[in-house]
Amino acid sequence: MMKVIVVGATGTIGSAVASALSKKHEVVRVGYSDGAYKVDIGSQDSIRELLSQIGKVDAIVSTTGMANFGSLDSLSDADYQLALSNKLMGQVNLVRIGRDYINDGGSVTLTSGILAHHPTPESLSISMANAGLEGFTRAVVFGLDRGIRVNVVSPEFVRETAEAMGMHGIGVPAEQTANAYVGSVEGSMNGEVLNIRDFI
Amino acid sequence: MMKVIVVGATGTIGSAVASALSKKHEVVRVGYSDGAYKVDIGSQDSIRELLSQIGKVDAIVSTTGMANFGSLDSLSDADYQLALSNKLMGQVNLVRIGRDYINDGGSVTLTSGILAHHPTPESLSISMANAGLEGFTRAVVFGLDRGIRVNVVSPEFVRETAEAMGMHGIGVPAEQTANAYVGSVEGSMNGEVLNIRDFI
Repeated sequence: MMKVIVVGATGTIGSAVASALSKKHEVVRVGYSDGAYKVDIGSQDSIRELLSQIGKVDAIVSTTGMANFGSLDSLSDADYQLALSNKLMGQVNLVRIGRDYINDGGSVTLTSGILAHHPTPESLSISMANAGLEGFTRAVVFGLDRGIRVNVVSPEFVRETAEAMGMHGIGVPAEQTANAYVGSVEGSMNGEVLNIRDFI
Repeated sequence: MMKVIVVGATGTIGSAVASALSKKHEVVRVGYSDGAYKVDIGSQDSIRELLSQIGKVDAIVSTTGMANFGSLDSLSDADYQLALSNKLMGQVNLVRIGRDYINDGGSVTLTSGILAHHPTPESLSISMANAGLEGFTRAVVFGLDRGIRVNVVSPEFVRETAEAMGMHGIGVPAEQTANAYVGSVEGSMNGEVLNIRDFI
């Protein structure tokens, strides 16, 4: 049994990941505004405060990160900045700070998304941040020690989110999406971009 | 004949690109600290000032962007910020601002690099920025109009740079690397990550 922090556990994917992991592991659920534990990954101080409260763990999973949809015409400097400082660097900082709180052989699992490689008309800043996070993940393995691993899961459109938007019968159910996170936590992959299709 | 701005024309790749393009086109060479035209792509004001001085063009090529090598242990917040604000957003802003100065059917060609997908121990922030720029380029096509195209060239280690570092017989000559930029300017590709091997 491992002790695993799930940052973003109140979200659609995060709650499915927390449920799946809690079958075998002790899960600490962390939200942004709800829950016993909260964090704003846009703030390094908030990340440090969270981790010092919880103490040593075997894995950190992030299913969070803010970024706005918008077009080349509509995205502002602040929109690009949010994607870079939150969805990208917020998750990068979970690795930079979090590794000191991870036991030998533990892992960090981050979240990018299919928009990194298959963009939509309004995904500009999100595609950029997701792809950047994948570049970081491929490169970070050189700096890890004590058997610590880092991977990034690339989810597709989630069925529950589609349903909530009135689009029926499309998307991958959150429960199936969660399999990739469980695979990253329990497996031996390192520095990989995990395609959820490989875990369904 | 097209009028083409080469930002980074004083660098190893940029000077080869400017030479190659000048066989058929009018080239405006732009440097960071040298030359008749200068720009700091880390500053939107500097980009606007440059483009308003030069006026309308058919293409903008960027072979520039600052980022520091460093490991997970050694990279500072400022190092990550430099990669994101200069190598990534500096080039993104050449598209955001530059498109208003580009004639119908023109193009912007940016520079990422092989480190996006094949990292080295000290390439962390560069791999992140390069991959992010590729994500941006794939997504930006939805927002372009008037036949304007955007591509990103991914160079490998340049032979002249290797030579200057005392490593002989490795790397791709700058003159061959430049072919991909000429291909992007004269071709019809859009939203693509151009592998220089396809142009040798």
